[in-house]
Amino acid sequence: LGLPAKSVMELAREAKKLGRDDPRRITHSLKAGLSLVLVSLFYHVDPLYSSFGDNTTWAVMTAVVIFEFSVGATLGKSVNRILATLGAGTLSLGVHGLANLFGNTGEPIVIDIFVFAVAAMVTFARFFPRFKARCDYGLLIFILTFSLLSVSSHREDKMVKMALERLSTIALGCCTTILVSICICPVWIGEDLHNLIALNIEKLENFLQGFGGEYCGVYQEGLPSNDRSFLQGYKSVLNSQSSEENMANLARWEPAHGRFRFFHPWKQYLKIGSLTRLCAIKIDVLNNYLNPQIQTPLEIRSEIKEQCMTISLECGKALKESSASIRRMIRADTAHLHIGNSKAAAENLKILFKTGLWKEADLLEIAPATTVASLLLEVVLCTERIVDAV
Amino acid sequence: LGLPAKSVMELAREAKKLGRDDPRRITHSLKAGLSLVLVSLFYHVDPLYSSFGDNTTWAVMTAVVIFEFSVGATLGKSVNRILATLGAGTLSLGVHGLANLFGNTGEPIVIDIFVFAVAAMVTFARFFPRFKARCDYGLLIFILTFSLLSVSSHREDKMVKMALERLSTIALGCCTTILVSICICPVWIGEDLHNLIALNIEKLENFLQGFGGEYCGVYQEGLPSNDRSFLQGYKSVLNSQSSEENMANLARWEPAHGRFRFFHPWKQYLKIGSLTRLCAIKIDVLNNYLNPQIQTPLEIRSEIKEQCMTISLECGKALKESSASIRRMIRADTAHLHIGNSKAAAENLKILFKTGLWKEADLLEIAPATTVASLLLEVVLCTERIVDAV
Repeated sequence: LGLPAKSVMELAREAKKLGRDDPRRITHSLKAGLSLVLVSLFYHVDPLYSSFGDNTTWAVMTAVVIFEFSVGATLGKSVNRILATLGAGTLSLGVHGLANLFGNTGEPIVIDIFVFAVAAMVTFARFFPRFKARCDYGLLIFILTFSLLSVSSHREDKMVKMALERLSTIALGCCTTILVSICICPVWIGEDLHNLIALNIEKLENFLQGFGGEYCGVYQEGLPSNDRSFLQGYKSVLNSQSSEENMANLARWEPAHGRFRFFHPWKQYLKIGSLTRLCAIKIDVLNNYLNPQIQTPLEIRSEIKEQCMTISLECGKALKESSASIRRMIRADTAHLHIGNSKAAAENLKILFKTGLWKEADLLEIAPATTVASLLLEVVLCTERIVDAV
Repeated sequence: LGLPAKSVMELAREAKKLGRDDPRRITHSLKAGLSLVLVSLFYHVDPLYSSFGDNTTWAVMTAVVIFEFSVGATLGKSVNRILATLGAGTLSLGVHGLANLFGNTGEPIVIDIFVFAVAAMVTFARFFPRFKARCDYGLLIFILTFSLLSVSSHREDKMVKMALERLSTIALGCCTTILVSICICPVWIGEDLHNLIALNIEKLENFLQGFGGEYCGVYQEGLPSNDRSFLQGYKSVLNSQSSEENMANLARWEPAHGRFRFFHPWKQYLKIGSLTRLCAIKIDVLNNYLNPQIQTPLEIRSEIKEQCMTISLECGKALKESSASIRRMIRADTAHLHIGNSKAAAENLKILFKTGLWKEADLLEIAPATTVASLLLEVVLCTERIVDAV
């Protein structure tokens, strides 16, 4: 008895957390319900029903399948669906006319041959990377509509009427869904991408601002020394490539809104994203050197403390400026100031190594420190490239 | 005139390449066409058509939507679709009965309230990560079927009959598709996952076997020194996480086949995959040190040449053994032998650094070499973990 109750409680807790993490999920669910009810009204209103008949179901179906979390995805699917239905409808009308020439017995055979050929070809087209990213859904709908219309054309005589009705109900469903999606608390995926890119840079910034102190055993005031979660934040950046690409693809469908104009440079976001990821990989290696087992003794580390702290702090500040300038969409040149500072510190660090402060120390013990130093130098370069790209 | 012809030529070239890279794509396309033709036969055969009527379209629709590249994905979608249709059908019958109690005017209102509530709740359920991975498609079909049946119940009186017909035609479509998918050149996604994991390990192996020679300026015989593609292969490993997880999810649906039994340990593949990725991250950093601009002078590198070569070669061999034992599904212990060898070389390398061969050299010039050395030590550890996990 206790087990199902417990799992229901757990589900409820999870639902609460999901809703609190992103309240737009709740709005989205309510919007999905609303758009379905709106579409079903077409069913209840007699003049509409009598003009479209059973094809009204297609409006309901479209509303269910089209409605996605973001405006971009919804619009993309709508355009795909309408164009594919139009194209497949036209083609199947043509095939129907051709098949008619072959008489009553030849007709189904000709139709089946066409269904086979079109389905095979369009299925193969879905493997093309360029189609997969943009119109995978449209190709699926193309096969679906073409085979449905062709197969049933054998039975139905008013095929043109049916195709037109289906197209108009689908368009009706699309319009309702798009209206609901845009008018009520719209979720713009472009904005999400924008925020994700800025957030990822901020994660790196958090790491870098904390790293110096952590590495040299100096803890920042106000931060409890055991709260190291800021050092883990960057990990999610490592795996964000596919979601960024997906978002940029969808963002292209969205109309101008707020600060985002048409032809917003979404590709630039991908570029910044991949630079951020490169930097995160370096940071991931740096993070390994916080492991106390492979560390250079503290007295050696304290010799390069000042430079390491400066480099990581200044890189952090430069990233902070960049992410802030992304968020505010204003080009800020103060970031270059911080890059300059960190470069100066990097030069100092190089000189420190050149003068060879620790000739007498064990080389293997120094190795981690030199690695950290050279990684920091690389981070400086990465940061500069991110700042330039912003 | 030339432009469209050119782009058609380009498409044809791309199609040829896609087909050659994976001939299963061509078979898949033909299978998709075949299963559609098979399903459309139900339409042509009179006794079948007369018993199901217009609902036969659902069989065609199911065949189009269900048919996926791999058996696992097809089966997963079929099970999702049938269960969701069954559940939604039952629920909508219940709602229909309840709504009937409210008379002719109250009925559509009650139904709309239920459609709204169910759509909103199920849409929200799709955000749960555990449902998203397993039955996202099922939840979508649940909303679809429930709203279609509920909305049209207002008009149709033979609702039970309609629901049953729809369910049986969907089942018919699923069965045909599954039969075609399994009987004709089946594509098992479990096998793909198996091969992908082995291939990823082999990519690391290629890198490591080439790295030693490349780093120390010694080129292997028989390999032209400018063919460095083997050094780039590992890059795809860095981004394979989401596709591996997706494949493991789908592989669970597949029945026992060939060397793969029921309850095959798919999770173990994910574990090996993530260990491989950790190792690839380290290798990515190592790769940076092949850049001639940041290299330690050759005379210093040649001092540690032997050890570096041994470590990377032996690690490469250990990975080769592991990937071979994955491919053959036989546990091989020879890999541990190579791990032992590389560990011994690592110890030698440590001693070399301890004795401090290059006291008089510039520390910053040595830094890259020490980094490479410590990275190689880490690669040894990673390799050992991969070998243990296999």
